[in-house]
Amino acid sequence: MENFIFQNPTKLIFGKGMIARLAKEIPAGKRVMVTFGGGSVRTNGVYEQVKEALKDFETVEFWGIESNPKVETLREAIRLGKEKKVDFLLAVGGGSVIDGTKLIAAGLLYDGDAWDLVLKGVCRNAVPLAAVSTLPATGSEMNNGAVISRKETAEKFAFHSFNPVFSILDPTVTFTLPKWQVACGIADTFVHVMEQYMTRPGQSRLMDRWAEGIVRSLVEIAPSIMENQKDYDKMADFMLCATMGLNHFIAMGVCEDWATHMIGHELTALHGLTHGATLAIVLPGLWRTLKQKKMAKLVQLGERVWGICDGSDEERADRTIEETEAFFRSLGLPTRLGDAQIGDDTILEIERRFMKRNVSLGEDGDVTAEVARRILENCK
Amino acid sequence: MENFIFQNPTKLIFGKGMIARLAKEIPAGKRVMVTFGGGSVRTNGVYEQVKEALKDFETVEFWGIESNPKVETLREAIRLGKEKKVDFLLAVGGGSVIDGTKLIAAGLLYDGDAWDLVLKGVCRNAVPLAAVSTLPATGSEMNNGAVISRKETAEKFAFHSFNPVFSILDPTVTFTLPKWQVACGIADTFVHVMEQYMTRPGQSRLMDRWAEGIVRSLVEIAPSIMENQKDYDKMADFMLCATMGLNHFIAMGVCEDWATHMIGHELTALHGLTHGATLAIVLPGLWRTLKQKKMAKLVQLGERVWGICDGSDEERADRTIEETEAFFRSLGLPTRLGDAQIGDDTILEIERRFMKRNVSLGEDGDVTAEVARRILENCK
Repeated sequence: MENFIFQNPTKLIFGKGMIARLAKEIPAGKRVMVTFGGGSVRTNGVYEQVKEALKDFETVEFWGIESNPKVETLREAIRLGKEKKVDFLLAVGGGSVIDGTKLIAAGLLYDGDAWDLVLKGVCRNAVPLAAVSTLPATGSEMNNGAVISRKETAEKFAFHSFNPVFSILDPTVTFTLPKWQVACGIADTFVHVMEQYMTRPGQSRLMDRWAEGIVRSLVEIAPSIMENQKDYDKMADFMLCATMGLNHFIAMGVCEDWATHMIGHELTALHGLTHGATLAIVLPGLWRTLKQKKMAKLVQLGERVWGICDGSDEERADRTIEETEAFFRSLGLPTRLGDAQIGDDTILEIERRFMKRNVSLGEDGDVTAEVARRILENCK
Repeated sequence: MENFIFQNPTKLIFGKGMIARLAKEIPAGKRVMVTFGGGSVRTNGVYEQVKEALKDFETVEFWGIESNPKVETLREAIRLGKEKKVDFLLAVGGGSVIDGTKLIAAGLLYDGDAWDLVLKGVCRNAVPLAAVSTLPATGSEMNNGAVISRKETAEKFAFHSFNPVFSILDPTVTFTLPKWQVACGIADTFVHVMEQYMTRPGQSRLMDRWAEGIVRSLVEIAPSIMENQKDYDKMADFMLCATMGLNHFIAMGVCEDWATHMIGHELTALHGLTHGATLAIVLPGLWRTLKQKKMAKLVQLGERVWGICDGSDEERADRTIEETEAFFRSLGLPTRLGDAQIGDDTILEIERRFMKRNVSLGEDGDVTAEVARRILENCK
């Protein structure tokens, strides 16, 4: 097992009716900026619950943080927050709203342009933020990461800041999510777990079991929640899986990959494709390309999650990849570039971008621009 | 899934050589009281490492926190700490040292007698404490619980305070632990997990998988580490399992039992038997007594951990209990009261104590004094 340091201070407040606790959790006297995405929180009752809970606070609302939040939008929020002297942020929405609000939190205490913070990649000072999470997917409600895009240059980069002080997760708010968002959330969670699992075997038997526990749970509940989103217990399972998939609980003492994400981000940056859908395309292609290297873990995943217990290692690895791709397809997601009308020009553009940035991705840093091109060829 | 609130702020610093980080983690200028148990840290190199790391701090040492730490001892530490005006505590040892130091931390800011704090059960104010954990077992290094005994009255009660600010776990320090302590630590971890798992089925499929992941890992590594304690990766697995077994990571949204612990505490209080050994005796007896009620979970554990996949539910539950008892015996632990020379008079004394305190234990509060007596009869 590798040495590690783990800490996750976020207070997780989980369950039916928990949005009402907002009033207790935010320190009295704070000037709160509440950030939102589009209008879905107005139709699912979340907005009213938040409004009611915050009735004794001075609040400013900022609306319109889009999917794959854009620095152009976030700059406006920072300007407004500085003007109103807010000293607490509450993100109400999915991962994009929470991610975007992490940049706002840092930007409020920074004199320069917010994109500089993204390019630096880390920040040392930010206004405290909390979240009401409405979409199980990114894990942003319990980690310090964010992914921010820049419209102007079609770029998308990761940025690390602070965890939310607390996050409220009420599974009932997911009952009315669009089916596509649920499917993308399942794929996103699945791939988050794989980024921390599908590397070298034998690093931590407990982390392996916990990672497998999340994906087994997803595989068990996915058919049912794709049919009926109003099953509280299953949506609660899904919501908890999504949070636990990316809060470092399964990353103790193990190396991590993240090449699928880095390649997926480029597909979103260039084509606007939803994050989870990009991952469903890239992951099977990456596994086909790096099968020899990842063989032992592919065999282990096949046995423990897909029940593949016979055949040679090569055959078992192949079947693991096929089962995984079939799982994504069963959610109604694209799993090949062609499904999303993405052609060879994009492959070459991503290779060019990676060459320019001289990337070396993956757990061993050996996924170069050329390897990324081969992975994308294997996604056709 | 039940509603829940989860938060665990402890910074976990895990791996070879990590004790040296102490100097970075304790705020400069703190007057540190370092607490120890017996002298084992003098022979395994831990004392020298701590001493070296703290060379720039003003420190006071307190030695002699015993197993099942006694309030009589802890009062002396509190007196010394107040006299020396310490404002940071560092527990160096196993669960008893860390538990005892949690009471010292609270006692330093309390004017009355420390036993009052134990009887209150919770504390609202304490000096910050951290730990260098040397014995995988109690999970005290990453939770807010402590169990404190009183020699005078042969009583032993749980008490809740604050989590350690950070805990350092270096698996190499476990290489020289007495075999009995390793065996008791495995049983303790196993039973901690069961207290959070062996209740009602279908509460959280992820928490079930995670709990099963810990006990499967323990079952896999136990024979090997009982033979050879110097296998770093396996001792690291064990150490991580012990911490994750009682830091609330597997308790989200599920009810908990804890009757085995409450009965076990009495066996320790009356006979001085090591905590883990009491649990190895009580757990199988409790399962035999409450088999009908816990049937669904016993069958699930049997299938997923012991590979018991055929027979009626009744047969599967019986085999699960037998396999678990056999596992404890394979560690060299007693699993019956007679193995520890405990007779009927103790059973009656525990029933009397529980009647006097009018206890109602277990996930449904239906383990009364009379049920506890029946459980103990089933441990003969």
